[in-house]
This record gives sequence, C-alpha cells and structure tokens, in this order.
Amino acid sequence: MESSPLERQSLGLLPWFIAATQILGLAAVIMTGVWMGHYEGGFAWDGSSLEFNIHPLCMVIGMVFLYGDSLLVYRVFKNESKTTVKILHAAIHLIALVAAIVGLVAVFGFHSAQNIPDMYSLHSWCGLITIILFCIQWVMGLTFFLFPGAAYSLRACYLPLHVYFGLGLFILAIGTSLLGITEKLFFSIRDTYSKFAPEGVLANVLGLVLVGFGLTVGYIVTRSEWKRVTNPEEEALSMHFKTLTERDSPDSPQGS
Amino acid sequence: MESSPLERQSLGLLPWFIAATQILGLAAVIMTGVWMGHYEGGFAWDGSSLEFNIHPLCMVIGMVFLYGDSLLVYRVFKNESKTTVKILHAAIHLIALVAAIVGLVAVFGFHSAQNIPDMYSLHSWCGLITIILFCIQWVMGLTFFLFPGAAYSLRACYLPLHVYFGLGLFILAIGTSLLGITEKLFFSIRDTYSKFAPEGVLANVLGLVLVGFGLTVGYIVTRSEWKRVTNPEEEALSMHFKTLTERDSPDSPQGS
Repeated sequence: MESSPLERQSLGLLPWFIAATQILGLAAVIMTGVWMGHYEGGFAWDGSSLEFNIHPLCMVIGMVFLYGDSLLVYRVFKNESKTTVKILHAAIHLIALVAAIVGLVAVFGFHSAQNIPDMYSLHSWCGLITIILFCIQWVMGLTFFLFPGAAYSLRACYLPLHVYFGLGLFILAIGTSLLGITEKLFFSIRDTYSKFAPEGVLANVLGLVLVGFGLTVGYIVTRSEWKRVTNPEEEALSMHFKTLTERDSPDSPQGS
Repeated sequence: MESSPLERQSLGLLPWFIAATQILGLAAVIMTGVWMGHYEGGFAWDGSSLEFNIHPLCMVIGMVFLYGDSLLVYRVFKNESKTTVKILHAAIHLIALVAAIVGLVAVFGFHSAQNIPDMYSLHSWCGLITIILFCIQWVMGLTFFLFPGAAYSLRACYLPLHVYFGLGLFILAIGTSLLGITEKLFFSIRDTYSKFAPEGVLANVLGLVLVGFGLTVGYIVTRSEWKRVTNPEEEALSMHFKTLTERDSPDSPQGS
C-alpha cells in the first residue's frame, strides 16, 4: 500500500524523535550524576551515604536509559535482520539488568551498614516488583523469541503480552524513579525543599526529564506508521526447522 | 474477516477485565477514603489538615477512577452510536475535571490557611502539568470531535495524538498520585513508616492498587482486537454536512 504524503512526512520525523530521546535520556543520567556527585557528596563503596549514591545513578542508567534504548532498537535498526535486532534488544536489557543489580546491592549494602530498615516504602515495593517482573520478562523473551524451540503460534500469542508488559514495566521503572527522587529529597533536604533549594529544583527537573523521556520513547514505539514491518520470509528463516514442521505454520491464521 | 477461535475466546475475556478495573478503581477510592477518614481524622472545609484530606480523595475519584472509566466507554458501549459514546466520554471527563478542581481548591486553601509554601515538590509540578494538559486535551477533544466544524482530515490527524496523550496523562495522573502518597506518608508518619505502621502499609497497598488499575485499563484500551470497529457510514453521519462537501471526504486515503 502506497503511503500518503502525510505519512511520508511523519516517517521523516522519526530521527528527530530518536534524537530527542537520547538528549533527554543522557540529560537524566548527567543530572542524576550531578545530584549525587555534587550535591550529595559523590560515590564510594564504603557503607556510607556515598554508597547509597550509586543506587540512583545505576537505576537511571539501567532501568530507564538503557531500558528505553532497548525498546527503540526495533525502530532504529529497521534494515538489520530481525534476529540481529532481537539479540541487540536482549543484550541491552541484560546490561540494564546488571546495572540495576549493582544499584540494588549498593542500596541494600548501605541499609545494612547503617541499620536502616528495608522494603517499607512504596518506592521499594514498586522497585522490587519492577525488577522481579523485568527478570521474568527477560527470561520469557529469551525462551519464546531467541531459543529456537517455541512454536510460531505460541510466539504470536505471547508477543502482544511481551510488548505490553515491556512498555508497562518501563513506565513503572520511571514511576519508581520519581518516587525515589521524592523520598531522597524528603530525607536529605526536608527543611530547604520548600524554599526551592537548588538541589530540590535540580531533582524536580530531573523528574520532569524522566517523564519526557518516557513519553517520547512511548510515542515512538506505539506510533503505528513507525512500526517495523515483519517480513514473513525472514520470520520463517529466523525460526528453527523443527517449528516449521509443526502444525502451526507461519501462514496459519493464529499467527496472523 | 472471520475471527479465529482464539480471538473469539479473548474477546470473551473483555467483561472480566472491565470488572477487574471497576473492583480495583473502587478499591482505590475506598482505601483513600479510609486512609483520610480513619487514619488522618476525616474531612472538613476549615483550613485545617482535614481540608487537605479532601484533596487525595477528590484526585483519586476524578483523575484516576473517573478518568480511567472515561477511557473505557469506547470498549464498554460498543453497540451505542459513536456520537453518544463521545458525549459520554466528554461528560465523564468533565465530572473528573470538576472533582480535580475541588481537590485543588482544597489543597491550596489548606496551604494558604497554614502558611505552607505552594508548588515546590515534584508531586505539585507533575500534578499541575497533568491538570493543565488535561484541560487543553478536553477542549481540543471537544473542538475536533464534538463540534461539527472540524474537517475529517484534521480529525484523522489529531485522533492518534488525542489517544496517545489521553493515555499518557492518565498514567501521569497515577504517577502523580503515587508521589502524593509518598509525600503525605513522609509528612504524617515519618517515624513509624519504617516500622510498617498500618497507615503506611494501607497507603503502599493503595499505591499498588492504583498501578494495577492503570495497567488493566491500559491493557484494555491498547489491545487491538478489543478496539471499536469504526463504521464509515456512522462516521460520515456524525459529521456536519459542511465537512462532507470539502475535498477531504471520509473515503480519502488520509482518513484511512
């Protein structure tokens, strides 16, 4: 189907939207670094509050910036093979997961060294749920889409759920970050926050940048005319021979 | 196109998902009422903290429960005319907006009476942005889709943006609610929150219920096979005669 001039015009905006995500994502990482590095005293792995400071930086790098970029690979690498892009998607998510685990070890280590109770706040509840579901999502993605054993019909059934929960967990990760920002400000600058202390303003702006990053990534991945068009031949080739011999072929209605 | 047995089966799940949203939404409203009514002392319009208590209740009723229900009307009333459902959508949003404004007046009134500074927290920034964009979105929706003057091509261009930002603002409203929960807990039960005080646990569970409501509403409105199938005849009839005489008819490719 030939695209209209309006559609061609909107397709041309994709690189600008991608650029916007990278500017917002990098700005969020830098602002978190400046907040923790400058206003909160820097980073160290010594059980002090400097160890805590590693936590927000790792979470924003892993669960927000890298997670978002991993969602974008299907829009950025439209001409690469599906398998290559899938591997890239899984690999970036794996690096994001490693960063998140380092961030978690930092905060639990800090709590343990300072005898601070764990897991009582809404931030911690949302965060742990996000991480656990993220791990399950990653393993299920690998099993269904990269290991060659899954039948086409199963893949087709699971794909919309994987996409929905992938985006849902990304939004939950951003929401959890905003909760973390609020919690940290109420611990650190409770008395000066209401007087618009620079640290509070920086952290608030960081929150808005995170929201902007989420909205832009969400817009790119949900816009229908920017979706990757699946090539049935490529889809068939990316599957194991075994699955092709099963009853549910790529041409079956269940997979359409 | 005939639907597969799997599709028919999944269509049958829609009422259950709708029921789940109503249970979660009502649970959120009741829990907010119990939190403010029982643990925080009840409600009054007297400039005290009891006036503040009106704020969370109005926001959860308006910006979360009613807002979410307004998104669902296109899935619930599939057999009603498009115009009827549009009016219902706009009307529920209007009630939501009124509830939100009452909630805003309550919190600003409380701040004013107690000499508490306004608009310094991330919660207040996100909240104000959400309300302003919500008002703009409502007026634009009315102008484009209910007033008969807008050309079909303009409607078709704006619709995806209206849908995306509508869902985006709903998510932002839920995120802002979670920030409000965290902020309120750090003001009210800072010393006992870490000891798992019942009020803190109730508020945390409320946060998770709000996330669950958002995820379920989001799933229903984004699931492709549950989308309302637009009837071109009905679409044409819902437009003003003037727009039908313009160059961009409903059958033009731009509107497809």
